[in-house]
Amino acid sequence: MIRVGINGYGTIGRRVARAVSLQDDMIVTGIVKTKPDYVSMVASRDFKIFVPDKSYEKAFQDAGIKVEGTVENLIDDSEIIVDATPEGQGEKNKDLYVKRRIKAIFEGGEEPEIAQASFNAYSNFEEARSKDYVRVVSCNTTALARTLHPLRERFGIRYVDATIVRRATDPNDSKKGPINAVEPSLSIPSHHAPDLRTVMSGLNVSTIAIKAPTTLMHVHAVRVELEKDASKNDVIEAWRSYRRIMEIGKNSGITSTGQMMDLAREFGRDRSDLYEIAVWSQSVSVQGNHVSYIQAVHQESDVVPENVDAIRSMFDIADRDRSVSMTDSKLKIEKRVF
Amino acid sequence: MIRVGINGYGTIGRRVARAVSLQDDMIVTGIVKTKPDYVSMVASRDFKIFVPDKSYEKAFQDAGIKVEGTVENLIDDSEIIVDATPEGQGEKNKDLYVKRRIKAIFEGGEEPEIAQASFNAYSNFEEARSKDYVRVVSCNTTALARTLHPLRERFGIRYVDATIVRRATDPNDSKKGPINAVEPSLSIPSHHAPDLRTVMSGLNVSTIAIKAPTTLMHVHAVRVELEKDASKNDVIEAWRSYRRIMEIGKNSGITSTGQMMDLAREFGRDRSDLYEIAVWSQSVSVQGNHVSYIQAVHQESDVVPENVDAIRSMFDIADRDRSVSMTDSKLKIEKRVF
Repeated sequence: MIRVGINGYGTIGRRVARAVSLQDDMIVTGIVKTKPDYVSMVASRDFKIFVPDKSYEKAFQDAGIKVEGTVENLIDDSEIIVDATPEGQGEKNKDLYVKRRIKAIFEGGEEPEIAQASFNAYSNFEEARSKDYVRVVSCNTTALARTLHPLRERFGIRYVDATIVRRATDPNDSKKGPINAVEPSLSIPSHHAPDLRTVMSGLNVSTIAIKAPTTLMHVHAVRVELEKDASKNDVIEAWRSYRRIMEIGKNSGITSTGQMMDLAREFGRDRSDLYEIAVWSQSVSVQGNHVSYIQAVHQESDVVPENVDAIRSMFDIADRDRSVSMTDSKLKIEKRVF
Repeated sequence: MIRVGINGYGTIGRRVARAVSLQDDMIVTGIVKTKPDYVSMVASRDFKIFVPDKSYEKAFQDAGIKVEGTVENLIDDSEIIVDATPEGQGEKNKDLYVKRRIKAIFEGGEEPEIAQASFNAYSNFEEARSKDYVRVVSCNTTALARTLHPLRERFGIRYVDATIVRRATDPNDSKKGPINAVEPSLSIPSHHAPDLRTVMSGLNVSTIAIKAPTTLMHVHAVRVELEKDASKNDVIEAWRSYRRIMEIGKNSGITSTGQMMDLAREFGRDRSDLYEIAVWSQSVSVQGNHVSYIQAVHQESDVVPENVDAIRSMFDIADRDRSVSMTDSKLKIEKRVF
């Protein structure tokens, strides 16, 4: 049983904690929280709570939440830390992990240089093998790697051009905008293109990112120039053996991210999450070697299974297909075609 | 075991089906769907699917979904129908229920005259006892009845004035608006005031309804003139023995409906629902016999436990407190203070 500590229990940390706790080969040693808010109040039923340092303890005590110790205590009781602290904080935390000689996973908000390898289970599981510091790429990069990897493997890829319509913020955030404007990121390529190359080495890719006033999902319009001609059927077939890609057909009646997340609620999973990248099969269009498709990405959860697989790769306890199968089985990810 | 058929499997029908299936004293005999969409695709794993009439069968067969029969077949196999069809359709369906001599529950979109009694578990459980046709009032009316009933019981109520900031539509709907305007309902009182009197007989109440561009929850600003003076503590204390009222304190850090629904996701319930009416305890303000407070209402789910209790009242198999306890226990509704 790999002993996993979770430093940071926000959108990603909470979900990784739950996903790890569902696996047969790993357990959660505890979580680090900074505030005794509603998330801590619920979490304290399931997980041991640690704090960054002793100065945080009193607030938790006042709120009636038991604190087990500091992050150092959590590290001492763990074999790996998943650092899901806010963007940029992981870099500050790394010194501690190095000093205490503990493995660590960082999330996509950190720079690639923080880790020995960036990670996506489908496209480069092997590169994290036995590494001490690994970074799981962001939700958007994960999504692109998921659907592009099978195409690259089957047909080869000459060029990718993706337009990423980003959700403005997460559903629990009422501070950030925009609420009534569309906000393009004016430097092209957006940071997603180089980030994608950290898990799909040498990929020729450009990306444009545009923020839209929604909190539910990202939507990607992807254009791919393959190395050889394919048919629409070939493309869909290439995705068929990958459970983390979900086909959404015309009969499903799903035409928006609103319905897509409603579908996720029907699955009965933790937090009504949608781990799969949902590709509208109706949108898949092929002309010779040019493929276009549209996919929806649940930004809160698509990286969750990736974190679990990264742990297995770093401890060298399973190969890609076995790890992905174990993770998917516990998270109720099955191949679904709608 | 009471045999419950669900006619209409939209926002409310799906949730009532799940809630009924979790009880020890009732089972779901089947659900009626009109389209073989994503909801049907998932539902067919758990429930028998029926259709309004034979003309609907082919579409389901083409989508590979087994149809068990028509709504008449479902009625023949059931002891009660929960009619959660779209607003106004329940009235059309009632003839069939009368003809087939089956009990039926209607939802708040129907007119009160459709039923022998309107229903809220806290305020008038007894009025549905042994009745054949009962209407569970709408989400907003349910919410008002929940928090007003304990105040009326403890202090008496002279007058209520509530402003209802309504969510524009449900999260899975991308057709309706408004998306960027606030839309007051200009007739005062809004329909909620007379509706509330159907479950709180003789209550002196006025309501104003204003639509806001959000899909998450309704928010109510409630002002109550009690028959006698009270303190803030008295008011909160009056709610304390009611599990379906949840206290949200300042330490929780919850200041918006975004965080409120995020809290619900932490509970791990079906569809991440929030059955309780969430009252911000910080907002409770009392001056003599004048009380003000703000509450948030999850429009998709607050009526779900009410439907379960209405069934028990109609079959006269439990009194209010016993039914509510049974329902709450299976839906993981416990008294929570944040």
